[in-house]
Amino acid sequence: MTARAAAVEDLVPLAAGLGFGGVGLWRDCYERAGAAEAARRVADAGLRVTSVCRGGMFPQPTATGREARRADNLRAIEEARVLGADCLVLVCGPACDGDLSAARGAIRDGVEALLPHAEAAGVPLAVEPMHPMMAADRSAITSLGEAVDLVRGIDHPMLGLALDSYHVWWDAALDEGLDRASGTVLTVQLADWVLPIHGQLSSRGMPGDGVIGMDRFVQRSRAAGFEGLVEVEVLSDAWWAAGPEAAARAAATALGAITDTVPVPQH
Amino acid sequence: MTARAAAVEDLVPLAAGLGFGGVGLWRDCYERAGAAEAARRVADAGLRVTSVCRGGMFPQPTATGREARRADNLRAIEEARVLGADCLVLVCGPACDGDLSAARGAIRDGVEALLPHAEAAGVPLAVEPMHPMMAADRSAITSLGEAVDLVRGIDHPMLGLALDSYHVWWDAALDEGLDRASGTVLTVQLADWVLPIHGQLSSRGMPGDGVIGMDRFVQRSRAAGFEGLVEVEVLSDAWWAAGPEAAARAAATALGAITDTVPVPQH
Repeated sequence: MTARAAAVEDLVPLAAGLGFGGVGLWRDCYERAGAAEAARRVADAGLRVTSVCRGGMFPQPTATGREARRADNLRAIEEARVLGADCLVLVCGPACDGDLSAARGAIRDGVEALLPHAEAAGVPLAVEPMHPMMAADRSAITSLGEAVDLVRGIDHPMLGLALDSYHVWWDAALDEGLDRASGTVLTVQLADWVLPIHGQLSSRGMPGDGVIGMDRFVQRSRAAGFEGLVEVEVLSDAWWAAGPEAAARAAATALGAITDTVPVPQH
Repeated sequence: MTARAAAVEDLVPLAAGLGFGGVGLWRDCYERAGAAEAARRVADAGLRVTSVCRGGMFPQPTATGREARRADNLRAIEEARVLGADCLVLVCGPACDGDLSAARGAIRDGVEALLPHAEAAGVPLAVEPMHPMMAADRSAITSLGEAVDLVRGIDHPMLGLALDSYHVWWDAALDEGLDRASGTVLTVQLADWVLPIHGQLSSRGMPGDGVIGMDRFVQRSRAAGFEGLVEVEVLSDAWWAAGPEAAARAAATALGAITDTVPVPQH
């Protein structure tokens, strides 16, 4: 999504050329090519799919809505299976009617109902705690601690966390949450908090351009047992305007500037 | 601040005419008139000052900055004393350098240093937990639970909380925080979360226009022991454009629509 305008057939050579070890794919990125063709291109380039985004959106006001969402979530799992993705990210969904407590119940029920399918497909599901400013339209799961409670409460080997610096950096309980998250982190995504914020979604900065201590965030994620490739997921009107190549290059530079405790994979 | 363009000499008759029992004052609102003149006008109209906004901004990168802030906080306490305000709201301040943990320490130190002066003046200090989207530029205190920890940790009779629906509504631990806050809530402020958010500060809606369950929020605040006047604090480009009279009228209507458990004071 950092290089939003690039479909998978353009994204893969771009990422490989810049030395990335993998790509995180939003579903629209391979919609035209299809998951099988996308998987082939990723494999041929020696990359891996670090995550597929997204399933979720569990709270729905109608039975029809719930059924449509369930069908879409099953398609997302199947796509993630075909792509051999490290995980399918769950953007769990907001309250339909302002009732966050009911939404949280619907999310738990929805995740539990999806897990047998995820297990059959061999696709881990990653609950993403999202920034509280997204509680009304993207997710009622608004803190790492809450997400850990959900994941630990369900306690299933195919269920874990998607950890995005932009969503959780502000939290006084972040370190405590990371301790409790240990062993359940399925993907780590980086975006920085840059001022001013001009909206909820696409106001993010490249790692290093904002206020979040990225070295510490990555190192704490490693201490919580995450050994995979770190993603850069910068939803940014500015970087989208700059174009996929400039954004991908900036992401590679930003990742290279981080003092990680796990060696960059050779490829 | 809902009626931002109105200085205190215009605000007071506007509020009294609409049946409000009091006014919450940002300091620029009485800058020209002065606190003493503002106090006289408020008293003459049979109103009270429910809060003064703001003191705080404790983390400062330099000794000069800290001293300037300390002097300003003492002025704010003196103004709140002259105004007979129910409390002085503390917007505690962001990290200077991205280090939220250090900022939280500086905030605690700053509050403790201010308390003897608040006590001497008889002005309660109200720590306001602010929305996490303001962590980088307004306050490192980003949740009710964190604010309660701060207030309970210091445990001083002149220290409590400012509780604003807009800042805390998203929190899965809100009810637990309100239980723990019992007896320490010094002011309750209402603003609603309306979509889309176009920035951090001035994207708020009138109570009832957004997704926050206002009846429940007010009733839970009452259950936590708050018996004072409920404020409407809507920082909104749209309402600022509509002008003070329209905004104040809408605020009165919004307050009237809330099922409160404490009778509206007669005046």
